[in-house]
Amino acid sequence: MRDVYLDYGAVTPTHPAVVEAMVPYLREQFGNPLSLHRYGEGPRAAIETAREKVAALIGAQPNEIYFTASGSEANNMAVKGIAMMARVKGKGNHIVVSAIEHQSVLYAAETMGKLGFEVTQVPVDRYGLVDPQAVAAALRDDTVLVAVMLANGEIGTIEPVAEIAQVVKARGIPFLSDAVDAVGRIPVDVNQLGVDLLSLSGSQFYGPKGAAALFIRRGVRITPLIDGGIQENGRRAGLEDVPAIVGLGVAAELAREEMEKRTAHLLPLRDRLMARLTSEIPHLYLTGHPTQRLPHHVSVVVEYIEGESMLLFLSMQGIAVSSGSTCTSRALKASHVLTAIGIDAALAQGSLVFTLGEGNSMEDADYVLATLPPIVERLRQMSPLYPGR
Amino acid sequence: MRDVYLDYGAVTPTHPAVVEAMVPYLREQFGNPLSLHRYGEGPRAAIETAREKVAALIGAQPNEIYFTASGSEANNMAVKGIAMMARVKGKGNHIVVSAIEHQSVLYAAETMGKLGFEVTQVPVDRYGLVDPQAVAAALRDDTVLVAVMLANGEIGTIEPVAEIAQVVKARGIPFLSDAVDAVGRIPVDVNQLGVDLLSLSGSQFYGPKGAAALFIRRGVRITPLIDGGIQENGRRAGLEDVPAIVGLGVAAELAREEMEKRTAHLLPLRDRLMARLTSEIPHLYLTGHPTQRLPHHVSVVVEYIEGESMLLFLSMQGIAVSSGSTCTSRALKASHVLTAIGIDAALAQGSLVFTLGEGNSMEDADYVLATLPPIVERLRQMSPLYPGR
Repeated sequence: MRDVYLDYGAVTPTHPAVVEAMVPYLREQFGNPLSLHRYGEGPRAAIETAREKVAALIGAQPNEIYFTASGSEANNMAVKGIAMMARVKGKGNHIVVSAIEHQSVLYAAETMGKLGFEVTQVPVDRYGLVDPQAVAAALRDDTVLVAVMLANGEIGTIEPVAEIAQVVKARGIPFLSDAVDAVGRIPVDVNQLGVDLLSLSGSQFYGPKGAAALFIRRGVRITPLIDGGIQENGRRAGLEDVPAIVGLGVAAELAREEMEKRTAHLLPLRDRLMARLTSEIPHLYLTGHPTQRLPHHVSVVVEYIEGESMLLFLSMQGIAVSSGSTCTSRALKASHVLTAIGIDAALAQGSLVFTLGEGNSMEDADYVLATLPPIVERLRQMSPLYPGR
Repeated sequence: MRDVYLDYGAVTPTHPAVVEAMVPYLREQFGNPLSLHRYGEGPRAAIETAREKVAALIGAQPNEIYFTASGSEANNMAVKGIAMMARVKGKGNHIVVSAIEHQSVLYAAETMGKLGFEVTQVPVDRYGLVDPQAVAAALRDDTVLVAVMLANGEIGTIEPVAEIAQVVKARGIPFLSDAVDAVGRIPVDVNQLGVDLLSLSGSQFYGPKGAAALFIRRGVRITPLIDGGIQENGRRAGLEDVPAIVGLGVAAELAREEMEKRTAHLLPLRDRLMARLTSEIPHLYLTGHPTQRLPHHVSVVVEYIEGESMLLFLSMQGIAVSSGSTCTSRALKASHVLTAIGIDAALAQGSLVFTLGEGNSMEDADYVLATLPPIVERLRQMSPLYPGR
């Protein structure tokens, strides 16, 4: 049996060079980066080197990079930090988000809603695209934050963030783009995009768990999510996870250097899977945009059966995939993303997400194409809903 | 030149057995713990094993342990989470903290102050002890949270938390104890203490950076600090830092097994340093309680000179110590802890904190006792304030 990991969107394995770079900071270089004696020196310098590498990956200045422990933390830091600052300054009470934001953005906005903020969700079209004009229409004089993700991890669609940012910038409102699924996979430049805040996570590009970052453009004011010591320029307290941060830096450097090569490897696999799954399995539909999508991403809905059943049968055949977002896969709710692109609740249950990576080959794609159809057929034969039975 | 690390309170080195346990989760066991396929299984099980080990260290149930990335995050999660829940439930607006809490508690309370909460600081005596009756007197009908740390990292004093908890419990108010400096060093049992929330950090007991925890007693309701996915029972979103959590678990197990042995090793070193520093260096005073203090902790203030100068001279002689709290050592503010125990701003500048650990020997203590006096003498000769010059 082949061992085919097709869930790089849930988490990537950590690159061996990343692990190797981390090990000294797990062992002898254990000092607290804030220590004034020599044990602090190596770790402190290592963090700043990592900051430079992460900044270089997204075209930012190093002092615009703030390390966090996860993409979710970065998104919460952005949403709550901007909203809290607005509250303290008496600035306004309105937040605009797209309907397909990650839960860490949506629920963070919801929490601010409990403090009296009003949250407007901008709808998307059937490909999951946000219309910049719809964002423009949602803006008000009391809007304090707009959040539209750079790419969606469930359906792979890449949003027109630069256009949206122009609209938002014209009103002088802080703009956050959750780029967790995008950074390391497609070229991202915070200045070309024109965003004020942008989140990323090393666990999406062969970095370690426990290290992510929030870009905060110089001049943008934000209330810390985690108060305390003076780490991260006073904006994110707590002893730094030096090994993970070092690993993130190396992963960022590798992603920048190898992006072209990686993309060239991924695209033929993605396109073969996309084309043949949709043509060879009846009642299977691609979700997300057919071309404006992440290079590693194939997402579909399969009618009459459940994604989780397919996932488990595929797993028995050595193939690891997701059904929707891993963050909520055990929550058993219909995906808000699939609902937002107009897929009904029954069809949304049949969601399958294949996310490719460095370890995959054309043989893996062919193995999936050989393995999935009989599973679908078998499950459909068991489904009372299937008209072909 | 000897190499003497006496800053275990800033951070401990990671135990080799901890690093060894982490490595498989940095490499092959890379899956997302929420994944439904087999890549998720190992990491998921490993997290739950770690949860059991951390629970066992503090006498809690595993489902009362919530992993965070730092002690500061755990404290913020507790303070803001309890206050936010009270706000949503319309319950009250008053928070009580001791005057010597860590910045992550004090500033988290301050941030809630900006949302309309009133914060009362309970003073301490000259040893840094909080009087349970002073806490009782501070409680009001609208008090929603009380926070008193278990032990102070700057002056080593252990607080009468069980007595304070009784007072607070009698009023039905949630009680947080920041036990970051205590857990792993002294026996801690959440039920004997009677606390509702308690924070701890692996970086204080030979665990890795990036893993800490908040104990939340079953039935205590709290608003998440980090919203998003369903990780940590929906209370702390974000991809889990599996390697660090595994490491924390192993560190907790080792701390429980070896606590007696470790304490027996530390106490003679601590007591020798404490006794001889205070007797052999004139105008040097112990801070914190002489007996009710952490077993690894010696803190002093040295009159007429600056702690930072001593620290740098000691560092040149191979001795690594702190001057006050590492979290704010670069903030150049007078320590709020030393101020609270009645030490004037000038004397507080001469703060030195020696924190012992597994790597230290009696020879290290003797080396400090031989090295520090001439440094003190030399700095005093340069000080315009020193009357003996």
